[in-house]
Amino acid sequence: MSFFNSRWVQLPDGCTELSDGRLPGGFRAAGVAAGVKQSGERDVALLVCDEPQVTSAARFSRSGAQSAPVLLTRQQSQLGALRAVVVNSGNANAATGERGMLDAAAMRAAAGEAAGIPVERIAVASTGVIGVPLPIDAITTAISSAARRLRDDGAEDFAAAIRTTDAFPKQVALQVELSGGSVRLSVQAKGAGMISPNFATLLVFVQTDARIDAAEVDLLLAVCTKRSFDRISVDGQLSTSDTIVMQASGASGVGIEPESADERLFGEALDAALRQVALLVARDGEGARRVGRVIVRGGDQRGVERVAHAVADSPLVKTALYGGDANWGRVIQAVGAALPGTAPLDVGIVIEGIEVCAHGAYVEHDAQALAQAVMGPEIEYEITLPGEGAETERYFSDLGHEYITINADYTT
Amino acid sequence: MSFFNSRWVQLPDGCTELSDGRLPGGFRAAGVAAGVKQSGERDVALLVCDEPQVTSAARFSRSGAQSAPVLLTRQQSQLGALRAVVVNSGNANAATGERGMLDAAAMRAAAGEAAGIPVERIAVASTGVIGVPLPIDAITTAISSAARRLRDDGAEDFAAAIRTTDAFPKQVALQVELSGGSVRLSVQAKGAGMISPNFATLLVFVQTDARIDAAEVDLLLAVCTKRSFDRISVDGQLSTSDTIVMQASGASGVGIEPESADERLFGEALDAALRQVALLVARDGEGARRVGRVIVRGGDQRGVERVAHAVADSPLVKTALYGGDANWGRVIQAVGAALPGTAPLDVGIVIEGIEVCAHGAYVEHDAQALAQAVMGPEIEYEITLPGEGAETERYFSDLGHEYITINADYTT
Repeated sequence: MSFFNSRWVQLPDGCTELSDGRLPGGFRAAGVAAGVKQSGERDVALLVCDEPQVTSAARFSRSGAQSAPVLLTRQQSQLGALRAVVVNSGNANAATGERGMLDAAAMRAAAGEAAGIPVERIAVASTGVIGVPLPIDAITTAISSAARRLRDDGAEDFAAAIRTTDAFPKQVALQVELSGGSVRLSVQAKGAGMISPNFATLLVFVQTDARIDAAEVDLLLAVCTKRSFDRISVDGQLSTSDTIVMQASGASGVGIEPESADERLFGEALDAALRQVALLVARDGEGARRVGRVIVRGGDQRGVERVAHAVADSPLVKTALYGGDANWGRVIQAVGAALPGTAPLDVGIVIEGIEVCAHGAYVEHDAQALAQAVMGPEIEYEITLPGEGAETERYFSDLGHEYITINADYTT
Repeated sequence: MSFFNSRWVQLPDGCTELSDGRLPGGFRAAGVAAGVKQSGERDVALLVCDEPQVTSAARFSRSGAQSAPVLLTRQQSQLGALRAVVVNSGNANAATGERGMLDAAAMRAAAGEAAGIPVERIAVASTGVIGVPLPIDAITTAISSAARRLRDDGAEDFAAAIRTTDAFPKQVALQVELSGGSVRLSVQAKGAGMISPNFATLLVFVQTDARIDAAEVDLLLAVCTKRSFDRISVDGQLSTSDTIVMQASGASGVGIEPESADERLFGEALDAALRQVALLVARDGEGARRVGRVIVRGGDQRGVERVAHAVADSPLVKTALYGGDANWGRVIQAVGAALPGTAPLDVGIVIEGIEVCAHGAYVEHDAQALAQAVMGPEIEYEITLPGEGAETERYFSDLGHEYITINADYTT
């Protein structure tokens, strides 16, 4: 089965999905178990680029309670020239104060020593429980062990070791044909809870063997993040720990120049890969059955964004989505809440192509057909506001019993 | 058992809880079944003041998708001189367009004719499913029937007929001793879902037989609403239909002058009653087990309000509350999300008197004692931000399986 299994994302022409398990040229990765997770599953991951000229870009949660690894990496690593990323799952190393900063630095130092890379060229990320000190000795020992196991087909091990509550792994490898030859692009991601406005406990690692300027890597990542991870909501929560790192090794010898046709082709591949990963995060959504897409058109940009957020984050819309319930009254409730003081509002709502509301009032429709349509795995809501020009979209997971079960018991 | 069963609200001195089932002097009420609710339960309610000089005040949802009865009442009724309220449950008459406005007007006309009151002195409210036309003939017939059954001990019937998903009724009657004699104060409320920032599908009706200027009724209601219904969150959703009406008949002959000691006494009684009703709404919260109170101190007013909202609306905090889980990492996650760009943030967290976090980092504490403390019915979270001066609080319900069960299946 293709990784691209949503009707909302198409793999662009000139791209091929790869299944040989190999990372792009220049990269090696590993994942091992340090005992942070009580289950004994892998929880320490290391990814290294063997090309010293590698370029990179990174983005982080904007939370006021950023985790120690986020603070350390942001402040003390060379974000445009990262050679390695070291990650642990099972413990977020957040709200851990001075000790947390020392532990994050110890992880970075262990990775640097084991892989022979200067610490300032390493990013650190942690995900899991907040407010508990890391078992740092076990982790640094595991980092050394991971460094000995680095393999160019280690993406799967790496992806497994960064997971927490994810129900399934999220990774893809693509080949992209450019004018100077083909390049590889791979993504490993983790995230199924606390996903929101600004992509939340979400760890995403992107590698390519194309040769790209650091400024251009940053631009590509910024644009594609805005269209993918910034547009998903699982539960409206912003994490302490979100980290996304993209690295370009240049090992393929194929360069991508700014504003070139190659850049457009590569950008489309990156966009498709990150949007599909984002959709998988929403679909995973800690027990989600269905994923919704809300498209809002009309009005001004601020208005459409507010409405899209309100619908995507509404627990009432989400529970209806879970229940396979065509209760569009909850959609108009969310729209109205997002635009206070505008009543009576001339809003239109179309669900799965069936118009249910026009000019703020119900429209006679085939309720049977609608009930059938909302039982599928992907449900589309189109909302029209008065005026024209602005447009946005958001992907969101439902809210069901599995979310409660996972989150009422997932504890320190 | 007293209506005032929370450690967070005390009945003021000079107030007595009444259990004779009688409304304040001048008021009569009734509740009947019109068949709007498929269960056959009562769903049409009428409350009438027999004193033509009655004063009143009203407040409504600010949603851009206000229901027809909200639009009609706001625009076409004398909000300072309401004599009657007519309500139906089971159908919100929202997103019903022109037909909805005609139906709301028909309800008002039926109440006016049956009770002999000019229509502009009547408020209309509806709660229930959105986007479905009212069975208006059945409702107007039921209104006539209700008018024949009006009784001065009809508060309980009235309260039953305004309920939807409420697990228990919410009403209280008090006697307040003032310098000129005693007055009565009674409240009937409905609300257990879509409760949020600005009090949501919440219907609240308040009566007193004190004599109070309309401007003063408005002021008392504004102040007490701000401290009660504006401070509860069930699921962060703003309804199309929220309505709160307060009426003062003057039938006791006891007047309350602006800025008098009597006004302070009466205001304290009203404050206690509305805060307790608000707490009951949060506790009901569509299947809630526990209710939380978050107090935020420090920083500026905007900051404390944002943090209080973020904590109270966080599905992660709410599921932990439901699970009786002391996962305070989710509290700091919500705080950080509310104040982006401020890391590292000097925040303190105390749960049920136990300090778990200071200066943004965990504090050694008795985990056993904390685990025990969060199993109770009311859990208090105290959050300290850097700086001083501002303070706010919010009450919120948990998020559990019952919420999912109710909302995944409650349909059109």
